[in-house]
Amino acid sequence: MKITRFVPSVLFGENAFDDLNAWIDKLYPNPQQYTVFVVDAVHRTTGLLQRLRPAPQDLVLEFDAPSHEPKTSDVDALRDRIVAEKGSELPRVVVGIGGGSSMDVAKAISVMLTNPGSSADYQGWDLVKHRGVPKIAVPTLSGTGAEATRTAVLTGPVKKLGINSDYSMYDHALLDPKLIETVPEEQEFFTGMDNYIHCVEASHGSAMNALGRPFALAAKASVENFFLKEKNYADFMVGSYFGGSSIANSSVGVCHALSYGIAFILGYRHGLANCIVFNQLEEFYGEDVRTFKAMVERHRVQLPKRVTKDVTPEQFEKMIALTYMLERDLVSTFGPEFKKALPPEKILELYGKM
Amino acid sequence: MKITRFVPSVLFGENAFDDLNAWIDKLYPNPQQYTVFVVDAVHRTTGLLQRLRPAPQDLVLEFDAPSHEPKTSDVDALRDRIVAEKGSELPRVVVGIGGGSSMDVAKAISVMLTNPGSSADYQGWDLVKHRGVPKIAVPTLSGTGAEATRTAVLTGPVKKLGINSDYSMYDHALLDPKLIETVPEEQEFFTGMDNYIHCVEASHGSAMNALGRPFALAAKASVENFFLKEKNYADFMVGSYFGGSSIANSSVGVCHALSYGIAFILGYRHGLANCIVFNQLEEFYGEDVRTFKAMVERHRVQLPKRVTKDVTPEQFEKMIALTYMLERDLVSTFGPEFKKALPPEKILELYGKM
Repeated sequence: MKITRFVPSVLFGENAFDDLNAWIDKLYPNPQQYTVFVVDAVHRTTGLLQRLRPAPQDLVLEFDAPSHEPKTSDVDALRDRIVAEKGSELPRVVVGIGGGSSMDVAKAISVMLTNPGSSADYQGWDLVKHRGVPKIAVPTLSGTGAEATRTAVLTGPVKKLGINSDYSMYDHALLDPKLIETVPEEQEFFTGMDNYIHCVEASHGSAMNALGRPFALAAKASVENFFLKEKNYADFMVGSYFGGSSIANSSVGVCHALSYGIAFILGYRHGLANCIVFNQLEEFYGEDVRTFKAMVERHRVQLPKRVTKDVTPEQFEKMIALTYMLERDLVSTFGPEFKKALPPEKILELYGKM
Repeated sequence: MKITRFVPSVLFGENAFDDLNAWIDKLYPNPQQYTVFVVDAVHRTTGLLQRLRPAPQDLVLEFDAPSHEPKTSDVDALRDRIVAEKGSELPRVVVGIGGGSSMDVAKAISVMLTNPGSSADYQGWDLVKHRGVPKIAVPTLSGTGAEATRTAVLTGPVKKLGINSDYSMYDHALLDPKLIETVPEEQEFFTGMDNYIHCVEASHGSAMNALGRPFALAAKASVENFFLKEKNYADFMVGSYFGGSSIANSSVGVCHALSYGIAFILGYRHGLANCIVFNQLEEFYGEDVRTFKAMVERHRVQLPKRVTKDVTPEQFEKMIALTYMLERDLVSTFGPEFKKALPPEKILELYGKM
């Protein structure tokens, strides 16, 4: 029985952010209770942090997304801080404001306030036992739609793996296109491409079904329109939300499998690693790679070149092994006989071009 | 503050209907409580009624959708039957199985079990005071996505107007493409065109926003693909769900305004009236009307011709007045100066061609 979850209520529109407090009061009309705001540290400089109007009892927690990806220890530390300050009293709502990382941290805090132990205990699928505190997503980046997924990606002591649970779905999302207008151009490009590559891989893959496909195709079109036609921030923001809405009914593919090695061994960030790889996959994704190249060219983006030139044979071995670890993705692109379509020498050849 | 509501959980897939009872038990694990199934009477002949496996305490209520559109008196009578049999005990869930009419009746019953008086008291916007009984939609037609909207369209003693409320949104939807495969071809065509015309009007109209548009465009494409390329029932069913998901962020337009008179004065059903009108609107909807005509031709559908030939001048006067009553739709197509774009003589000219 495959159930897909969607965010049940969305407040959408330019300057919707100004209605955040009023919305919270309407949804959870207990002004004595406190609210937890988890805010991407970048908003200290964008001015958004200053626009927040917390009540005296509210907690505003910053997550330093620019410096690192979310760890289970970050979530545990923030949860402990809330408990140290408020004891067993729960907040009326947790609000996650920022990009995917900060929204994921807020998701995880919401469930860690009602479930014992460390967030590392819940990395996996459907391990969360108790409903979390209600939560509202306020995305400030257009990426892969963390506001619409049940995954909170976390790096733990043992593994990088999401908490995937119905309880980690947001109850509400506030989509204010004005909030993504201030994103630096390079970041805007790479988070957009992250969504684009996700949707290309999803819509080509066999794991995709009829419920996920129209979300992915609309998301893909939104990125193309944004970078090749007109920078319409409202469409671009909804494109991210649609991309996230497609994820549960699809899988990524060969690009993500290959980029795992680039990220893990060479240390490139996920979004950039995907671009380095996708740029070389014209034989699998034809037209979509040509469209990607047109977007790169139009925005004069410099992709790193010859990133594998100093990779040792032992490292290449590891990168091949890592690629094959993402079996589900490879099956989605090539079918169960993926090793025939993508033998080790083919992987080496592709890596050699990057 | 404009909030858009979406169905938070969807069970999608061929033969998902076989999992209905298991899903109910999982969602509302109290097998002592009863379930209300509201079933379109057409399913007496399709065999779906016989596939239901109600428990002894469950109530299976038929709604005779083939004979008439839902009335407030239908809803009140069904609610009274439930109360007569079960007293103040509420069902664990109401399940609406059928086309838009039956799904709307089930929505309305869900709120009328927890709100006093007649359903006619709640025709309008946000008049429902108390949360309804939880509800599951099981669409068996691909139309305008009643499973995804907060409207239950009802004809009351005074007016035909929906109950529009957050409490009339479905909590869950079961989308089984197999269930729409048995729809008679003519009905399949007209319910599909109902969705198509909705989405064309919505996406051309000024009331549309960036959240509604990608849903409407994907829904429109699903209808075109179904009738011009391949009859993929899964895509067609999701197209209906997407059409419904676009409705809250859009408005219909001139076609719906003109078809009101055709339906009201000449007695044609909503879907057919829309087709009769849309067929003559090439000057407003260009390419989309040509695509519509291609679908009509390919499926050898006979639209009624010269339907206005016996209309009297007095009746035409009424039809013009009815058209102008749908001001919101006309504004969406033409802007606030809609009477300049569509003066009475233009309406007469268009009606004369139908």
